[in-house]
Amino acid sequence: MLTDYETRLQAYMEGFITPERKERMLQVLAQRTRYAVCVLEDLFDPRNGSAVIRHCDALGIHELHAIENVHHFKSDTQVDLGTAQWLDMRVYRKPSGGGPVSVKARRKALQTASGGRVPPPASQTPAVLASLKERGYRIVATSPHADDDSLPETLDLASGPVAVVFGTEKHGISEEAREAADIFMRIPMVGFVESFNLSASAAIVLHVLSRRIREEGLPWRLEADDAERVLFEWVRRTAPHAESLVQRFDKENGKGS
Amino acid sequence: MLTDYETRLQAYMEGFITPERKERMLQVLAQRTRYAVCVLEDLFDPRNGSAVIRHCDALGIHELHAIENVHHFKSDTQVDLGTAQWLDMRVYRKPSGGGPVSVKARRKALQTASGGRVPPPASQTPAVLASLKERGYRIVATSPHADDDSLPETLDLASGPVAVVFGTEKHGISEEAREAADIFMRIPMVGFVESFNLSASAAIVLHVLSRRIREEGLPWRLEADDAERVLFEWVRRTAPHAESLVQRFDKENGKGS
Repeated sequence: MLTDYETRLQAYMEGFITPERKERMLQVLAQRTRYAVCVLEDLFDPRNGSAVIRHCDALGIHELHAIENVHHFKSDTQVDLGTAQWLDMRVYRKPSGGGPVSVKARRKALQTASGGRVPPPASQTPAVLASLKERGYRIVATSPHADDDSLPETLDLASGPVAVVFGTEKHGISEEAREAADIFMRIPMVGFVESFNLSASAAIVLHVLSRRIREEGLPWRLEADDAERVLFEWVRRTAPHAESLVQRFDKENGKGS
Repeated sequence: MLTDYETRLQAYMEGFITPERKERMLQVLAQRTRYAVCVLEDLFDPRNGSAVIRHCDALGIHELHAIENVHHFKSDTQVDLGTAQWLDMRVYRKPSGGGPVSVKARRKALQTASGGRVPPPASQTPAVLASLKERGYRIVATSPHADDDSLPETLDLASGPVAVVFGTEKHGISEEAREAADIFMRIPMVGFVESFNLSASAAIVLHVLSRRIREEGLPWRLEADDAERVLFEWVRRTAPHAESLVQRFDKENGKGS
């Protein structure tokens, strides 16, 4: 539920959004789901992160978790086309802070992670996946080499919501993600190459799941309270000159009033 | 059918390939199809071309047409991982020749194509698509905005093989491709963004088609003669020091003998 302050702020800010824009938001909102959520583990290439952000928006997958372990998660608005603002994106920054990571620091972290003397930075993966499990998600690890596994088309969706984990470009999902996984899933491949690039894997899996979720009579829609809050966030983030509007509203009305 | 010369050359070259390698080739060959072929129209970004090459190999889509109209088609082996050698790739070079296109020349071509005084270079698209039609393919144009259209999951495959055309990153398929199209197909999208990036579109479409073709009892396998020739090409291209081996064989046996 929105607080009284939030309800009034939203009403105020909606005054600055065209009716067509509001209508479009409601239309997209009605197609958003958290029945499948996406988890990106330690991506390296900003193009991949951005591409997945765009896939999620296009497919209505509203919740995207980006875990930093060794690499700094960055996205490129040239690729994501500004879609990040329409998602519930949760970036788990490395403990060392969120600033840009130098090439030198990255190299050192990589050396460290691959068996140097300094202990590798603690993985944030277990905590993120544990918290998803607490919320009722089953953890689906994507892995091209898994044997005993599901396909996107055959994955059990009826038993409850799923959090699909995609690993780093080079090494795939981490040992920690593997341990936390409830289900292993692969995309069938019949060629010489043994993997898709990360953005392609995510596109295929999320497309198939988004389609299946909507077709298989599952409770995929956002709950009313959740949808209300998502709309509030969208209006607050994307109204023209949003920040100044919030300041003006607070000044005129008092934040706590 | 292979000629007598080719049969002997292949037998000679297979002597330099490990049995495991040969076995792997036969395994992949058995999964190759031309029931769906992929057509890329005038791609700009080498990463996209390369990504699609990799998708095609991974999904067993053996035939890939790359049409150059304004842009020069390039692929990046860092992205395609060398998979181009395993495909029947047909690149239609611009009449001006196959050399690298300078930024200046590209700019000029773009200005030209977008309404400058010099007439735009003639599109190669109609000829390529006509020749596919002659071979019995229906042309499927991917378009995010089409209204009266199929989805990858609902596209009619039973009526015969399909050639799926993907257009340039910015402008989608050309007017010429639109005119030649028998079927329009879109990927369902429910977000704010109205398209996937090209590599993601291709991954989704080709994955779904590759899967459906194999499951719907269609005559998707390569014909015996075709498979024989594909294997011959693979052996000839990928044996260690292939070029020297061919030269040595020709010297010892005479090419025409």
